Amino acid sequence: MTTLVNRQFLLVSRPAGEPTDANFRLVETNVPELADGQVLVRHHYLSLDPYMRGRMNDAKSYAPPQPLNEVMVGGTVGVVVASRHPAFAEGDRVASMGGWQEYAVMDAAKPGQLRKIDTTRIPLSAYLGPLGIPGLTAWYGLLRIIKPVQGNTVVVSAAAGAVGSAVGQLVRRAGARAVGIAGGAEKCRLAVEEFGFERCIDYREHRDLPSLSAALAAACPNGIDGDFENVGGMILDAVMINANAFSRVAVCGMIAGYNGEPIPMAAPQLILTNRMTFEGFIIREHPEAWAEASADLGALVASGALKYRETVAHGLESAPEAFRGLLKGRNIGKQLVKLV
Amino acid sequence: MTTLVNRQFLLVSRPAGEPTDANFRLVETNVPELADGQVLVRHHYLSLDPYMRGRMNDAKSYAPPQPLNEVMVGGTVGVVVASRHPAFAEGDRVASMGGWQEYAVMDAAKPGQLRKIDTTRIPLSAYLGPLGIPGLTAWYGLLRIIKPVQGNTVVVSAAAGAVGSAVGQLVRRAGARAVGIAGGAEKCRLAVEEFGFERCIDYREHRDLPSLSAALAAACPNGIDGDFENVGGMILDAVMINANAFSRVAVCGMIAGYNGEPIPMAAPQLILTNRMTFEGFIIREHPEAWAEASADLGALVASGALKYRETVAHGLESAPEAFRGLLKGRNIGKQLVKLV
Repeated sequence: MTTLVNRQFLLVSRPAGEPTDANFRLVETNVPELADGQVLVRHHYLSLDPYMRGRMNDAKSYAPPQPLNEVMVGGTVGVVVASRHPAFAEGDRVASMGGWQEYAVMDAAKPGQLRKIDTTRIPLSAYLGPLGIPGLTAWYGLLRIIKPVQGNTVVVSAAAGAVGSAVGQLVRRAGARAVGIAGGAEKCRLAVEEFGFERCIDYREHRDLPSLSAALAAACPNGIDGDFENVGGMILDAVMINANAFSRVAVCGMIAGYNGEPIPMAAPQLILTNRMTFEGFIIREHPEAWAEASADLGALVASGALKYRETVAHGLESAPEAFRGLLKGRNIGKQLVKLV
Repeated sequence: MTTLVNRQFLLVSRPAGEPTDANFRLVETNVPELADGQVLVRHHYLSLDPYMRGRMNDAKSYAPPQPLNEVMVGGTVGVVVASRHPAFAEGDRVASMGGWQEYAVMDAAKPGQLRKIDTTRIPLSAYLGPLGIPGLTAWYGLLRIIKPVQGNTVVVSAAAGAVGSAVGQLVRRAGARAVGIAGGAEKCRLAVEEFGFERCIDYREHRDLPSLSAALAAACPNGIDGDFENVGGMILDAVMINANAFSRVAVCGMIAGYNGEPIPMAAPQLILTNRMTFEGFIIREHPEAWAEASADLGALVASGALKYRETVAHGLESAPEAFRGLLKGRNIGKQLVKLV
C-alpha cells in the first residue's frame, strides 16, 4: 500500500464564545501502518453536532473536554480500506467516532469502536442522522422520558434539526400533537410539511417572552404536556408558562447557551406550580435502549416513513464554518461534512 | 346549646409582596345550627404553611386562589363539640382543613372533609406536623422522588423547618448522608443535634453564589446525589453546581419567591450536563402513598424516633404576624397557632 496522506483538524485553543478559525489547525499526516487488530477507515461523512461546542470548553460536563492539539471528536461513517481484524474486510461500511479527519485508524477489537452498517436499503449518511445519535436521542427522549399518549401536545424546539425533525414524526405516530419551534419560515414550512408538526412557530417573529408565550398558547389550546428541549433560554421559559400539570421536559440540549451566553430560567417555581418533571439525558448513557430504538428507526427509514433532511458541507476544510453555522441554526436537518 | 361566637380571619385583599394586616379582617359570627350530617369542631391548632402565600395571589397554580372575603384556608386539628353525623361523637379528635377560625362546621359526609385521629400515643398537634402535610411531604419527596441509597448525599434546604427536619431524619434512616441548609446558628445547631443532619450550612453566612457553592462543596466531598428543595433561588443554584450525574431534585417549595421576588435559575444547562431529574410535587395529589407514609411516620413519632419542633403563636389574632414570620424563616419546625 502506498503511503496515504490524512488531513486532520486539531483543536489548538479553546474558543471564547463562537469558535473561530484560529481555534483549529488543519494538518497533514501520513497514515501509519496498521497493527494487528486495527482497521483503516476512509471517512465519507463527518457529523457536526451541538455537543461539540461543549467539549471545546475546559469545563466539568458529562464528557471530558476535547484535549488540545488532538483531532476534534466527531461521529463518522465510511468504508474500510484496509483491515487487520478478522471481523472487518475492505469495502465494509462502518460507523464510528472517527473525528474531524479524512481517515481513521480504529482499534476494532475495542467494544463500541467500530460498527458495521447495512446500506442495502438505507443510505450511508442516514447512520449519522435518523439512525445515528440524533435519531436515537429523539427516540429515547420522546418515548422514555416524555412518554406521550394519544391527544397530548408535545412542543419541540429546533424542530427542523436532526433531532427535532425525528421527534415530530414520532410524536405524530404516537397519536399526539406536535408543535414545533424553529428559526425562519423555511424551517417552519418543512416542519409542518415533512416532519409531522401540526404547527410551527418561527421564534424570530417573537423577540420577547410575552410574544413567544402568546404564540405558544395559541398553537397549544390544550396546553403543553411534553417538551423536547433542544434550545433553552426564552423558548423554555415560554414553554413553562404554558405547561400543563404533570408535564414532562426531556432536556436534550440548550444550544442557546453553547457559546457561553447566560440562559437563566426565568421562573423555576413553575416546576412546582405545574408539577413538572425535567430530565436531562445523553443517549450514550442509555445503551439498554439502543437495540429497540435502532430496529424501530431502521424500519421507519427503510420504508420511507421517517423523513429527514441533510445540510451538506463539502470537504474537510469546510468543517469549522459549517460548525459555526450549526450553532447559529443555519442548517436544516442533519449537518454533515462530505469528505469523499 | 347556647349560641357560640366564632372568630374568623377573612382574606379581604391580595397582598403585593409581604402580606400586611390590612389584607386580613378578623370577624365575629354566630356558629349556625348544625344540619343533618354536619359536625361542629372546635379548633385547637391552626397550621401555617408557606403554600398559603401562593393561594393569596390571583394566579394560575395547582390550586384555585383563596377567594376574597372568605375564611383563609388552612389545616386544623381540634375536638368535636357537637355532631349530627353518626360517625363522629362529641370529644372525638379530628383533623381537617378548617381554616383560620376558632370553630368550623364540617360536612362530615363529604370524603376527606374530616378525619378522626388517635391521640393516645401521639399529641394532637403532631397531626399538623410530622403526621400531617409536612411529614407526608417529606416522606414522599424523599422516598418516592429522591430515592436515596446508602452512601448518597442529600441536601435539604429549610432544614430546621417542619418538612426539612423530617427529611433529614429519613435520609439518615436510609443510610444516606443529610446536609442541611438553614438560616441562623440556632437552626443549624438543631438540624445537626436533633434532625439527623451530619452538617448544616448557615446560608446567612454566604451572601453570594460562589461562597455558598464553596460551602456546599466542602460539606459534600462526594458531591450531591439528591436535593430536597424548599427554598429555590441562590440555594438551588449552589446545589446544581455541586450536583452529581443522575442526581434527583424533589421540588417541594420555592419560598425564596413566595412574596413575588424573581428567583431565576442561573444555569439550567446543568440539568443537562449533570443529567439531573427535577420533579415538582404536592402531596395531596399522591393519595396512593398516604397510608404507607402515615403508618411509617406514625410509628416513628409514637416511638420517639422521629423528632420534631413546633413554634407556637397564641390566639387567632396572632395568625397574620406568625404567618409573616414563617415566610421570613423566624419559626423553627412547624409553625402553629394555638387556639384553645
